[in-house]
Amino acid sequence: MVEQPQHKAITRRRLQRMAAVLARRQPDIAIALEDVHDPHNVSAVLRSCDATGVADVHLVYDAEEPPELSRGVSAGTNRWLRTTQHANIEECYRAVRDQGRTVFATTLSSDALDLYDVDLTEPCALVFGNESRGLSEQAVEAADASIRIPMLGMAESLNISVACAVILFEAMRQRRLAGYFEAPRFDEQRMRSTLARWLERDERDPTLARKAEFDPQEFPLVWPRTQPRPDVAGDDSG
Amino acid sequence: MVEQPQHKAITRRRLQRMAAVLARRQPDIAIALEDVHDPHNVSAVLRSCDATGVADVHLVYDAEEPPELSRGVSAGTNRWLRTTQHANIEECYRAVRDQGRTVFATTLSSDALDLYDVDLTEPCALVFGNESRGLSEQAVEAADASIRIPMLGMAESLNISVACAVILFEAMRQRRLAGYFEAPRFDEQRMRSTLARWLERDERDPTLARKAEFDPQEFPLVWPRTQPRPDVAGDDSG
Repeated sequence: MVEQPQHKAITRRRLQRMAAVLARRQPDIAIALEDVHDPHNVSAVLRSCDATGVADVHLVYDAEEPPELSRGVSAGTNRWLRTTQHANIEECYRAVRDQGRTVFATTLSSDALDLYDVDLTEPCALVFGNESRGLSEQAVEAADASIRIPMLGMAESLNISVACAVILFEAMRQRRLAGYFEAPRFDEQRMRSTLARWLERDERDPTLARKAEFDPQEFPLVWPRTQPRPDVAGDDSG
Repeated sequence: MVEQPQHKAITRRRLQRMAAVLARRQPDIAIALEDVHDPHNVSAVLRSCDATGVADVHLVYDAEEPPELSRGVSAGTNRWLRTTQHANIEECYRAVRDQGRTVFATTLSSDALDLYDVDLTEPCALVFGNESRGLSEQAVEAADASIRIPMLGMAESLNISVACAVILFEAMRQRRLAGYFEAPRFDEQRMRSTLARWLERDERDPTLARKAEFDPQEFPLVWPRTQPRPDVAGDDSG
């Protein structure tokens, strides 16, 4: 994507899309990555978070350097997410537990809970480890439980971005059945502050729009849905 | 992985593992890739197939060169799969329809069926397109239906390997609920011929084992299961 100068006004359509996405964001599910170092993996993980309504990403880089997540103001899925970096796994777990979440370490261990037996509609944090080493012992031990993706083949592991997608889309499937995407779950304050941050980072200029057709600060964040499904279809480019 | 000379005999344990995996292979689900060119993507896709019991992979390279799938006798997940290359999409669809499968094109279109509304326990083939162009118009039009993964975020597409994993693990979830992994679904002929091919490609030498403890050709392909779950846990290295 070519970086464009910020001289186009944001459109009502794009603002509506942001509001629609915000209305599906889930405050009670988060992921944490421990020393996941490949930027392609991190980028794919962030994309899965965005797609499944997960807004909060916690990062721990103990043994590895953090990858470069943003390649300019407008690029990267991370602008749609809230990422928090922690010095170590204890600090990370403290942060996610403060919000009442159960911490699930993802492992390959046959002792772990089967993903499809876990209720992911409950407040939870899903923790993923480094590409080759997996999660540290410490991260597994300090978690509330371990979960694994059942695998029925000869190969014994999945790429981290694939594993994360399988788990997050299963959470989304369960949460759709539970009706979690039918009404906003962020409170209005978080919706407003998130929208403000998104507008700030967007390639379209909200200040131009503010002076013209409508004021994004006053933009209604919930409006009647015409679609029977909680998917956000259609054009994002407007 | 370092290529090893074939001088170690295959163990009973490894043969048991192969038989366990074979007992979970699904004869009535396949995937097709149209011009997916990145070897990392193809490799991740094959890994998801193996993990979810999908044995048949159809490849169409019309606009792109086929990627190099095997890096030596013992490397690569493709040794556990049956890959068939086709000259064009019609030939590919003819091949999968001969086996009575419904052909689902995977797209981003909002007109497509929602993945989670589709019954993937029925015989089906899932078709995935090129990384940047997606499926050709022809491939979409000649399919029986289109399906899409619901996405609730700002980003509008998923990496092909992520999309494929999300769909195949959903198929596996449905098929586990339907009991499809509780008894072998390949007929004995296909189990025997597949096992023979796997042994041929394995880094462990079955001919040494044949002379010794047991004869792989006579190895029982179904045996009592002690695990309550159809997962194959444990060590693959034996």
